[in-house]
Amino acid sequence: MRTMEYLECYFCQKKYSLDLFNLFCPDCYEPLLYHYPPGKKTINLEKDWPLEKFLDFLPLSELIPDLSLGEGNTPFIKLNRLSEKFGLPPIFAKNEAFNPTATFKDRGTAVAIQKAVSMGIKRIGTVSTGSMASSTAAYGAKAGIKTVVLVKEDIPIEKLFSVGIQRPVLVSVKGDYGELFYKSFSIGQKLNIYFMNSVDPFRIEGYKAIGFEIFLQLNSKIPSYIFVPVSSGGHLIGLMRAFLDLQQQGIIPKLPLFIGVQAHGCSPIAQAFRQGKLKVKRIKKGKTIAHSISNPDPPGGNIALKMIREHDGMILDVSDEEILNAQRFLAETEGIFCLPASATTLAGLLKISEKKAFNPRDQIVLVITGSGLKDVKSLSASQININHAFLSDLDEKLKTLI
Amino acid sequence: MRTMEYLECYFCQKKYSLDLFNLFCPDCYEPLLYHYPPGKKTINLEKDWPLEKFLDFLPLSELIPDLSLGEGNTPFIKLNRLSEKFGLPPIFAKNEAFNPTATFKDRGTAVAIQKAVSMGIKRIGTVSTGSMASSTAAYGAKAGIKTVVLVKEDIPIEKLFSVGIQRPVLVSVKGDYGELFYKSFSIGQKLNIYFMNSVDPFRIEGYKAIGFEIFLQLNSKIPSYIFVPVSSGGHLIGLMRAFLDLQQQGIIPKLPLFIGVQAHGCSPIAQAFRQGKLKVKRIKKGKTIAHSISNPDPPGGNIALKMIREHDGMILDVSDEEILNAQRFLAETEGIFCLPASATTLAGLLKISEKKAFNPRDQIVLVITGSGLKDVKSLSASQININHAFLSDLDEKLKTLI
Repeated sequence: MRTMEYLECYFCQKKYSLDLFNLFCPDCYEPLLYHYPPGKKTINLEKDWPLEKFLDFLPLSELIPDLSLGEGNTPFIKLNRLSEKFGLPPIFAKNEAFNPTATFKDRGTAVAIQKAVSMGIKRIGTVSTGSMASSTAAYGAKAGIKTVVLVKEDIPIEKLFSVGIQRPVLVSVKGDYGELFYKSFSIGQKLNIYFMNSVDPFRIEGYKAIGFEIFLQLNSKIPSYIFVPVSSGGHLIGLMRAFLDLQQQGIIPKLPLFIGVQAHGCSPIAQAFRQGKLKVKRIKKGKTIAHSISNPDPPGGNIALKMIREHDGMILDVSDEEILNAQRFLAETEGIFCLPASATTLAGLLKISEKKAFNPRDQIVLVITGSGLKDVKSLSASQININHAFLSDLDEKLKTLI
Repeated sequence: MRTMEYLECYFCQKKYSLDLFNLFCPDCYEPLLYHYPPGKKTINLEKDWPLEKFLDFLPLSELIPDLSLGEGNTPFIKLNRLSEKFGLPPIFAKNEAFNPTATFKDRGTAVAIQKAVSMGIKRIGTVSTGSMASSTAAYGAKAGIKTVVLVKEDIPIEKLFSVGIQRPVLVSVKGDYGELFYKSFSIGQKLNIYFMNSVDPFRIEGYKAIGFEIFLQLNSKIPSYIFVPVSSGGHLIGLMRAFLDLQQQGIIPKLPLFIGVQAHGCSPIAQAFRQGKLKVKRIKKGKTIAHSISNPDPPGGNIALKMIREHDGMILDVSDEEILNAQRFLAETEGIFCLPASATTLAGLLKISEKKAFNPRDQIVLVITGSGLKDVKSLSASQININHAFLSDLDEKLKTLI
């Protein structure tokens, strides 16, 4: 017999029986989070697959290997040249581009799809404009279950190629995008489609694996700071929950300091943080080069804000210019070509370092959320330098260039 | 004191002292391969980093961890739905898209850059139109050494963004591309630039790690068949050398059957194989959707051809239509969105399976060489199916679609 499972409201603290078609608090409309019964949990270091290694900490009782696309175990790279360039303590990149669809979203989809299949769900869906769409379509294809992907009407068709190639039921929807997010759940209830959107509780639990891996890759130490891009809030919530789990189990004494970074052109959570507000206010329309974190109405914003305050973290924002510079620094100094959204982490670090002196023994982690290949169009010809030569005088030309 | 190191000609069998500025046989102009002294070699299973794990089998005596971008340990995924769909024995994807620049090329660059830095080289370079350019630029950036990337004049600027962002000395060269390949070496000699091009002996040794990992991921068994896309020939040569190493060490009794696949529109090696010729004849110009394996004058073609014949393998070609179908099957059935070049592996398997009955106990490996994100433009709107709806009647529309 399956044990009862519960979701919980972070604000009301009320518990609700798990129902994949009711994922929001009926009282305060906040996204519900997974509730674990108390008990001893351990990391199973003998296992290689992250879902197996961290199974005790995940909302899954069994695993179906056939649903995996090889997510996780992403590299943790020391950025020595960057530390040297900016006179900063050790910096590490946790590079989530090394995932099946080149994004951290796969960590969440990997767990949500396990839950869906183990509960006998026959149809899944997502509302997304980018990375989550291709991640969900890929895992849906692997599982062989009907997958519905709802996208905004004005999305350029090239952006849909990497989604459409997996042959989901892809629908371009005319209407307000924020409304579409909430409407998808009511449609899901009617048509039996489990919509695993951005703040899905199983996605959020999946993001915890990133945190656990950072801890293990630092030889079971906690870093001083973790910088992470913030859009819906789900990723930040998941990462914090990983370290809260470790603290609760007595494995670590305290949490790292979390620094969530938004793009200035779409920073409703950073604004609320700065203004000391308890709730995030929806902004009209985001405008930033960091498309994948441009969410004007972040559904996990209030929880992220509360958690960050409870644990002495910070949410800040950075300009598009700072983002593009950081993207270039990561590429030209460390060979990491990431999304503009991912580069907000370095931009945030550089911004803070202008005012704050770090301790040389600090260890700083930047979570690189996705590959730059996912949005090559955000680059412009002005950012790269191309020289021209004839084959006949190439050697002469090269002499002047090297 | 450094022990003497040698390169060797696969045809003349003559040995030459290692010189990074002389990588071709002075007699027959074939690319030289690395020569190992005889001796017992073991895989160091306790290590996680592939270069450390397989160090005994690599042309490196020491490793510099700071040069790594996290290459290797790529997933090995069982493609159950594909086997079922086509009534085939177990198929596995070795997915090399999980690499720093989303391509198997990183395996080669990772080893070549170690060699370069340990030998005190100050400048590296490559001649490439695609994946090798961004791979070399990324590793060059990480190492902090001057990196020259020479590209064809007519390459679209968007293709250069992921290279240019790493800020190499990027030169667009007007002139014959095949000539540029050979001329780069003489320029390298003059200007002290180590050109690590497609059939560089250290690149080829780097590709061996893919083979060793396949062996370990199959629980130290050899697969029956390994399908791999063939362009310059270097990748296939490297994979075969991995299994030859294992055989020489008495670890395996025999080699898997290697099946190299080319695109019909540019298949000089497959043509030579079919015609029973000993040497590959340069073709005028390739024309195929699989751009990354469109090499009309493959510098490793003769060696690849000889090795394949010596070990009962096969080189075949597949049409663009077969390639695009295979690319779609991998995506819609297994959630793997790969380059058209990588899809040649499945296309080749399906082509062979029309004439040949496989044994149900066979194990078939497809080497997926790179992420589909590297060439989204090769897809067209006709390959994907987009539906349209208004938010107001989305549920009615969805009912008809699911």
